[in-house]
Amino acid sequence: MTSPRPCSAFAHPNIALVKYWGNRDDALRLPANGSISVNLAGLETRTRVTWDERRVTGEDIFTLNGSPVSGSGLKRVSEFLDLVRHMAGFDFRADVVSANNFPTGAGIASSASAFGALALAATHAAGLDLAEADLSRLARRGSGSACRSVPGGFVEWLAGSGDMDSFAVSLAPPEHWPLVDCLAIVSSEHKPTGSTEGHTLAPTSILQSARVADAEHRLDACRTAIRQRDFQSLADGIELDSNLMHAVMMTSSPPLFYWLETSLSVMRTVVEWRRKGLPAAYTMDAGPNIHVICEADSAAEAARLLAGIPGVREVRQAGVGGPARLAAPD
Amino acid sequence: MTSPRPCSAFAHPNIALVKYWGNRDDALRLPANGSISVNLAGLETRTRVTWDERRVTGEDIFTLNGSPVSGSGLKRVSEFLDLVRHMAGFDFRADVVSANNFPTGAGIASSASAFGALALAATHAAGLDLAEADLSRLARRGSGSACRSVPGGFVEWLAGSGDMDSFAVSLAPPEHWPLVDCLAIVSSEHKPTGSTEGHTLAPTSILQSARVADAEHRLDACRTAIRQRDFQSLADGIELDSNLMHAVMMTSSPPLFYWLETSLSVMRTVVEWRRKGLPAAYTMDAGPNIHVICEADSAAEAARLLAGIPGVREVRQAGVGGPARLAAPD
Repeated sequence: MTSPRPCSAFAHPNIALVKYWGNRDDALRLPANGSISVNLAGLETRTRVTWDERRVTGEDIFTLNGSPVSGSGLKRVSEFLDLVRHMAGFDFRADVVSANNFPTGAGIASSASAFGALALAATHAAGLDLAEADLSRLARRGSGSACRSVPGGFVEWLAGSGDMDSFAVSLAPPEHWPLVDCLAIVSSEHKPTGSTEGHTLAPTSILQSARVADAEHRLDACRTAIRQRDFQSLADGIELDSNLMHAVMMTSSPPLFYWLETSLSVMRTVVEWRRKGLPAAYTMDAGPNIHVICEADSAAEAARLLAGIPGVREVRQAGVGGPARLAAPD
Repeated sequence: MTSPRPCSAFAHPNIALVKYWGNRDDALRLPANGSISVNLAGLETRTRVTWDERRVTGEDIFTLNGSPVSGSGLKRVSEFLDLVRHMAGFDFRADVVSANNFPTGAGIASSASAFGALALAATHAAGLDLAEADLSRLARRGSGSACRSVPGGFVEWLAGSGDMDSFAVSLAPPEHWPLVDCLAIVSSEHKPTGSTEGHTLAPTSILQSARVADAEHRLDACRTAIRQRDFQSLADGIELDSNLMHAVMMTSSPPLFYWLETSLSVMRTVVEWRRKGLPAAYTMDAGPNIHVICEADSAAEAARLLAGIPGVREVRQAGVGGPARLAAPD
């Protein structure tokens, strides 16, 4: 093993086209069903990890966007670092400095890019050189969807049969199909239930098992639509899949409603646009913002139209991003 | 058989607490699952039927709210009258005059009260005196939920095994539990898909079979809540059941979205009220308006609060209504 050294890595957040909702195993974050996503170019988390050879007891240090993090946020990072310590065979404490180039609370889930970047930086700083699949498996332990931020472009998370074969692989590189995610950010006053807690509620909906049982069919259709660059099929598939996930959420116990009034306006409007010929389709995660997936030629028009919908605060555009990557040494 | 004579009857619309959505048999309107409803007092359809012994060919005459109806509206009524003609053993054409005491398009489904009143008036005018169950079976053929407008108070439609045992029965009279339906009417610019067409789409959702498979459990819980006058249990049950139906609608092919922005506001607000101690619960049918079911003591307060929610155009209150009934002879 080489000596521990500081190391920085980047990872993009991703948006799921076929959703992950609910686990077969909450502790290992083994998903109820496979999922497909695209990484979001231009948006990223940068994370620097330094293992401190002088400290083998006490707490890790975690700084996020310039502020020290303690409590449950630190605990989640430290438990993840324990996995890396176990792999590396040392007990060193870490100094983790992480920052997103997109604002927190801007409607972009940051746990995927956070644990994607942390997995790469922490292992590399420990002198470990993991294969992509193993890095993806590791990132999964921090946040399920983080495993999809490790490979590049269009990505499928294989549900697998256990910890060893539940990881993400690239289906196609970013340049295969230059889609654009126009993210409509909606004002929100209420703090939604976090994904980690939400996943544990999925089995309380009587609809979850039907959603999961049909997943292979939706994954097949999505893979085919990506391979053939068939936007209409992709659009029908991702809207249905988003609706299915929210159907499960709304019928869990307690029910989870992530939609706000403007979310509903945007969904209805996007369907109407597509009927009139604009290639755009919506998908929503566990929050009120709406991701509108467009073909590249239509993104500027879609973004302009979205910005005009009452209640839409801001529209961000992101192309298809590459894999998690190391930064040049400091 | 006595000689045909003019006859008038009244029936109330009803609001389902456990929903009917999807048929096992579309032609016979045999439902995928049983349902429970309450009749809505004060709102009613009055229908007068005169069999014309001089006419055994040609069209029936149907006047609704003062205007003659032709086309598909007349066809639906005539096909229903064919069932009565068959039972009565004659071919006389009918003159049907029907009126609602609530405005069309005010968000109250009128087909239940319409076919409830028509079934009673048409059979009685033909000299037939049907038992309640047979009248309910007959009304079902015109509009599924109409079978629930025949008995009084709290009503269960037994799914049954076929035409003979699929009818509604009263679970409790209106005075058993003086609930009030505060109907929040929401502006709507778009014409939703009609229920008859919507029911045929239910099997296209992969969630419908799970919704149907669990129906007996929800019916049990609702019956128990009614028997024990347990508002909290009723509230949880009817909101879940409404969400389940809309989950199926939103994931059918094509997807049906009946919710408007204000519907979502009202749903969220009602849940919040209940958390703060106001006994109120929402349920929505195949339209954008929201029925807020309250205990009698809270109805005035709920109606006042509902009227203050932006987008709510009007609030109507209805107690629990009695059975379909004959009017005094003209």
